[in-house]
Amino acid sequence: MTIADRWLLPDGMDEVLPPQATRMEALRRALLDLYHCWGYDLVMPPPVEFLDSLLTGTGTDLDLQTFKLIDQLTGRMMGASADVTPQVARMDAHSLKHRGPARLCYCSNVLRAKADQHQGGRSPVQVGVELFGHAGLEADLEILRLALASLTTAGAQEIHLALGHIGIYRALVQAADLDADSRRALFEAIERKSPSDVRALVEVQVTDSRLAAMLKALVHLHGGVDVLDEARRIFSDAPAAVSEAFDQLQALCQGMSSEHAQVTLYVDLADLRGYQYHTGMMFAAYVPGYGQALAKGGRYDDTGKAFGRARPATGFSMDLKLLASLVEQLPACDGIWAPAAAAPADAALDAVITRLRSAGERVVQALPGQYTGPTEHRCNRRLVRMGDDWQVSPLA
Amino acid sequence: MTIADRWLLPDGMDEVLPPQATRMEALRRALLDLYHCWGYDLVMPPPVEFLDSLLTGTGTDLDLQTFKLIDQLTGRMMGASADVTPQVARMDAHSLKHRGPARLCYCSNVLRAKADQHQGGRSPVQVGVELFGHAGLEADLEILRLALASLTTAGAQEIHLALGHIGIYRALVQAADLDADSRRALFEAIERKSPSDVRALVEVQVTDSRLAAMLKALVHLHGGVDVLDEARRIFSDAPAAVSEAFDQLQALCQGMSSEHAQVTLYVDLADLRGYQYHTGMMFAAYVPGYGQALAKGGRYDDTGKAFGRARPATGFSMDLKLLASLVEQLPACDGIWAPAAAAPADAALDAVITRLRSAGERVVQALPGQYTGPTEHRCNRRLVRMGDDWQVSPLA
Repeated sequence: MTIADRWLLPDGMDEVLPPQATRMEALRRALLDLYHCWGYDLVMPPPVEFLDSLLTGTGTDLDLQTFKLIDQLTGRMMGASADVTPQVARMDAHSLKHRGPARLCYCSNVLRAKADQHQGGRSPVQVGVELFGHAGLEADLEILRLALASLTTAGAQEIHLALGHIGIYRALVQAADLDADSRRALFEAIERKSPSDVRALVEVQVTDSRLAAMLKALVHLHGGVDVLDEARRIFSDAPAAVSEAFDQLQALCQGMSSEHAQVTLYVDLADLRGYQYHTGMMFAAYVPGYGQALAKGGRYDDTGKAFGRARPATGFSMDLKLLASLVEQLPACDGIWAPAAAAPADAALDAVITRLRSAGERVVQALPGQYTGPTEHRCNRRLVRMGDDWQVSPLA
Repeated sequence: MTIADRWLLPDGMDEVLPPQATRMEALRRALLDLYHCWGYDLVMPPPVEFLDSLLTGTGTDLDLQTFKLIDQLTGRMMGASADVTPQVARMDAHSLKHRGPARLCYCSNVLRAKADQHQGGRSPVQVGVELFGHAGLEADLEILRLALASLTTAGAQEIHLALGHIGIYRALVQAADLDADSRRALFEAIERKSPSDVRALVEVQVTDSRLAAMLKALVHLHGGVDVLDEARRIFSDAPAAVSEAFDQLQALCQGMSSEHAQVTLYVDLADLRGYQYHTGMMFAAYVPGYGQALAKGGRYDDTGKAFGRARPATGFSMDLKLLASLVEQLPACDGIWAPAAAAPADAALDAVITRLRSAGERVVQALPGQYTGPTEHRCNRRLVRMGDDWQVSPLA
């Protein structure tokens, strides 16, 4: 193996160098502070769990994304966390057992076996919040607002928010009473938004003509908030769950537009992302210049059921690595350059350096014989001896 | 599988709940701010690398501790990072290529296949610093001081610092010219500080009587700083490298004791920890009540060689999870309790909540029908309507 090979990193398993790492850290702090101010408590899920716990009720997509490891202590199969959300649901259901609503936030490394074209690398830093224990729209609205506040904190100017509701598709498919194969075929046709495939399937499989018309209409119902009015007309005699979903989306759109005028709302009634997982409203927030959503979330009630406690749940998550690329700040050149100590312990110099550092100053002390200087170490001042004392002066 | 089994976590792969997670985050920030003030730049190494890169020149101990994964994209073997230090050495040697000294710090999750009795769990959060590019004692002294400052930041009152130097053992064994088997047997005897085993081995294998006497003395040479004076007498005609090591230890002890009077110094000349890895002074810092060292470090020159650039290097690391257990601070009960919104968007209430949060206040908004109250959510004040406005008042 040559030296050139040895430093190759696996695709999507990237290192973060200065100054980008510093930007990520600053954004991490700003986001966790934001969540603290909204009443969310920090949790740190384990990076590895037994596979049975990790994948309970989460569906096959996550299974394929999860790195598998054998536990040498027990011989049992473990998995590296590929998504923090189900872990936090377990922590809420089992470890915390709060009586009322619980607000939790996290910022954790996750690992993914395969790079998803929509999710960036294989080692994202997942940051997000979850609100457990409240089934009402107020919780969803809080989550939506917090997602927008997060993107604003990261520096996003223009945000496009896509809203959907998995309850619409669920209610229609249930009413149509399809067999498993047809259901899967229909799901895939709607997912790829293909009107001709949907029409071909529906005309053969769905006998109720009103239901067939609604399913065919679904793939066309995406666009501005007006889509909801159009949908209400077409779905006037749909199952009750469908009009409830419309009411929820309408209320969320109103709650958003009154507060976040700079956000462009987009409604997609045929959005099936996270079908195995979501149970209510779903959203994805986009920023121009990024092909993938920067924040994704929605309602996912009952995930905690497998752990002994079904709880309403809603939340969102983001990739801190991706989000930090919005931040363009240059590293500050604000350090103080200190000369190398004349002896291993130069008490006067040590004392002044300690005092400056305690006051929050960045002091870089030269090492004997060092040939790089203050500017290479982002210093704009230096410590200069004045008699028995030391003073900070600007660089000559 | 029952519900009771499903939430069991693998041994040593623990979750961190509030308020401990909040304490860890606060300590993380305090430490990274400290390192920033000392001129150290943050880096984030990849959580997974190809095994060849990860384990180059690090020895077999780390290999046994590393979880192995197959990269589905290339079929190559990867390893989860079990120790950040060699990764940072690679980043210094290959990715950064600074001309002069480079100061780097990190705070990253690592995974260990087996729980080491001296290292706590299998999912530590490794936090530490590395100083590359300077072979002199000034760099070692800076690292030692920064380790002590880190422990003080975490709240340690009484610190015991154990100092050693791998160069002493290396020089003696090289002079003794032992075969591989005897060398290993001697290493193990000294490591377990067994004078009888060392004597038995040395009397058979080492023909030079002065060298034999020195090797036999080594296991006894640990204790206060006076040990160095005693060692100088016994090792008066040792190889030059041995007296150089003594000089270094003496200078470090002086540098420490003048500045850190509250630190108890301990010298152990037979310390062989990290033999495959260290090249000069080594240290471990202890706090009463903890069986294991809270900070460990030392010099490890030339690790970057395998990546095309041998650089002097010295540094230390700690486990943030363990260190945060020093912090005893209770979670603050300082939040403001806001009533549930009457409508999805209650503009006046929303505005006052937004204003308070922007000012850094923690505002927890009730959700309709919520039966837990302000004290359960650590609030000591509440928002009360006063005519058209809202005011913050103490809890009744």
